[in-house]
Amino acid sequence: MSIETYVNEFERRDWQTTTEGTVRFAVIGLGWWTIDEAIPSISDSDLCEATVAVSSSAEKAERVASDVSTMSHGITYDEFQDGAARDAYDAIYICSPNALHLPYVETAAEFGKAVFCEKPMEASVERAQEMITLAEDAGIPLLIGYRMHTEPAIRRARELIRDGAIGRPVQALGNNSQSLLSINDDPEQWRLNPDLAGPGTSVTDIGIYPLNTARFLLDADPVAVQAQMDSDHEAFTDVPDERAAFTATMDDGTLLACTTSQNAQSSTSLRIIGTDGEIHLEPAFHMETELRLTCGETTVDLSTAQVDQMTEILTYFADRVLSGERIGPDGEHGLVDLRAIEAIYEAASAGQTIEIE
Amino acid sequence: MSIETYVNEFERRDWQTTTEGTVRFAVIGLGWWTIDEAIPSISDSDLCEATVAVSSSAEKAERVASDVSTMSHGITYDEFQDGAARDAYDAIYICSPNALHLPYVETAAEFGKAVFCEKPMEASVERAQEMITLAEDAGIPLLIGYRMHTEPAIRRARELIRDGAIGRPVQALGNNSQSLLSINDDPEQWRLNPDLAGPGTSVTDIGIYPLNTARFLLDADPVAVQAQMDSDHEAFTDVPDERAAFTATMDDGTLLACTTSQNAQSSTSLRIIGTDGEIHLEPAFHMETELRLTCGETTVDLSTAQVDQMTEILTYFADRVLSGERIGPDGEHGLVDLRAIEAIYEAASAGQTIEIE
Repeated sequence: MSIETYVNEFERRDWQTTTEGTVRFAVIGLGWWTIDEAIPSISDSDLCEATVAVSSSAEKAERVASDVSTMSHGITYDEFQDGAARDAYDAIYICSPNALHLPYVETAAEFGKAVFCEKPMEASVERAQEMITLAEDAGIPLLIGYRMHTEPAIRRARELIRDGAIGRPVQALGNNSQSLLSINDDPEQWRLNPDLAGPGTSVTDIGIYPLNTARFLLDADPVAVQAQMDSDHEAFTDVPDERAAFTATMDDGTLLACTTSQNAQSSTSLRIIGTDGEIHLEPAFHMETELRLTCGETTVDLSTAQVDQMTEILTYFADRVLSGERIGPDGEHGLVDLRAIEAIYEAASAGQTIEIE
Repeated sequence: MSIETYVNEFERRDWQTTTEGTVRFAVIGLGWWTIDEAIPSISDSDLCEATVAVSSSAEKAERVASDVSTMSHGITYDEFQDGAARDAYDAIYICSPNALHLPYVETAAEFGKAVFCEKPMEASVERAQEMITLAEDAGIPLLIGYRMHTEPAIRRARELIRDGAIGRPVQALGNNSQSLLSINDDPEQWRLNPDLAGPGTSVTDIGIYPLNTARFLLDADPVAVQAQMDSDHEAFTDVPDERAAFTATMDDGTLLACTTSQNAQSSTSLRIIGTDGEIHLEPAFHMETELRLTCGETTVDLSTAQVDQMTEILTYFADRVLSGERIGPDGEHGLVDLRAIEAIYEAASAGQTIEIE
């Protein structure tokens, strides 16, 4: 491929199968991410429309529904589960606390609705498995919202790795850190509550990005993990990982090392180092992804217009729902992350390498 | 300090105490590093002079001695240990295989010569301890050649961290990789021979850079380590770590994660992420160091003329030998790395977190 073609087609939606049709969404969990990112991205997508807002608070659901021109209903969780407005949506977007994902998938399964579920898919391996079974038995599409999988720079990086641009991958190094309390200063928020978030906060909520993106780039899964983690800030009393460092041996022999913290400067990066080159993504994950390729002494920086990562993954989801084509990252893919995450916390607690079956 | 002053004084030798005098070096171990880097840097330093070349091969020692205008003697290891040319040098520069450092320090101790010893200081903790005792008993200065300690960008980064520019340090992420066989294609080379190199190759020889530089930047030492490592290339049959990933909990609570490989694309980087900012060094270690500081949304790239890192550390060493001031990084400092390195190999082998006493 010529450089001109490569650059001109950098953002191509190589996954797209249809430009016709509309998937109507019931949006579940009206936190800052849903309001500021997901709903605007649904509105921006040619294949998506937000029609129903679902919240624990009737007042909040109605307020959001009245703020979004395409929305016809603002309902409570209970009303949603009772089947309210069920003819007004084709799919659900779930961004509730992790431990509450499963009951909404149960409702979607009951009513035959497609599911876009934010990651991690649930708070435990056991509940994730239940979710997969529910979706399979009902025959509904289930996508776990790993938006890196449809991020153009990540897809181009993956192609470069598959084409042998960096030789055989040797190791990967990633970081994802942010100041959670700067985003939401409530120390009682669900991301700091193990009953709602799962085994912890930094690894579960943001360390999952370098882990999953490395899996996607390498087409490899973790087989053994180690971790060290600690918390000392009082808001992090109930979770073990205000900060964490973890390593993973992948099933292709690659070694991964990551750091992550919910109480640090925002910084996102991921590099894959091979025998003959390196892919360096920085910033890597949050609505902006820049790609650098180094082979020997030559470095190429690919700097392109940034897409809206949520619009891309939501459009991909709608494309698959409309076409009926196979969808992924699916529940089985998300389950691999949850197994790794549980192993990471177990490794830190036990001070031992934990093998993943 | 004004930005102008900061930039203008970026490369200042804040450690310098004298500009008078000359330290004459016997240079031990005439591999590519000594020939291409150390001897030219000794010649470039105002306080240093190379006067004696020492090798296992008389022919090679004589050839190097005749190639370097300041050199008066080319002698064998045996001749050196018998006291040949002992009035022609004040200090020794040791860049032999790691497991041969100790006998040269023994000779230096016998003749009262100062010692500049490349890192790692020896092939085991036990031998490193013997070296420290030898130097202490003889009252000779002993410097372990961590040239990052006198690299201006590293020193300025350390000042920024101490001044609170990134808040409280939270985690550090580093990589050091290179293609050893591209530098020296002999599979029998000492860096791949545990009898000469110590417990392995990637961690011992180059993983020591992010480990030690993180220690220096944070003024903190590792208290617990984990590691995963593997070898499959036939040249790496005798060492466990063609590639390695390791983590360390430091005594200030910071978590470190590193990758390293002797069979990969050259890549060096180290970042320290704090509660309020990040120091990012890339390239980090090998004769070129670039510093980026990010605080919140603001990023400053400090790009300056690169110093010769070997000339800096050799001049520092000569300065301390001439002034008699306290010298460091000393043997005790180097011993901490060897304890950590042995613990890293033990952790990989045992699949357990290893505490460092």
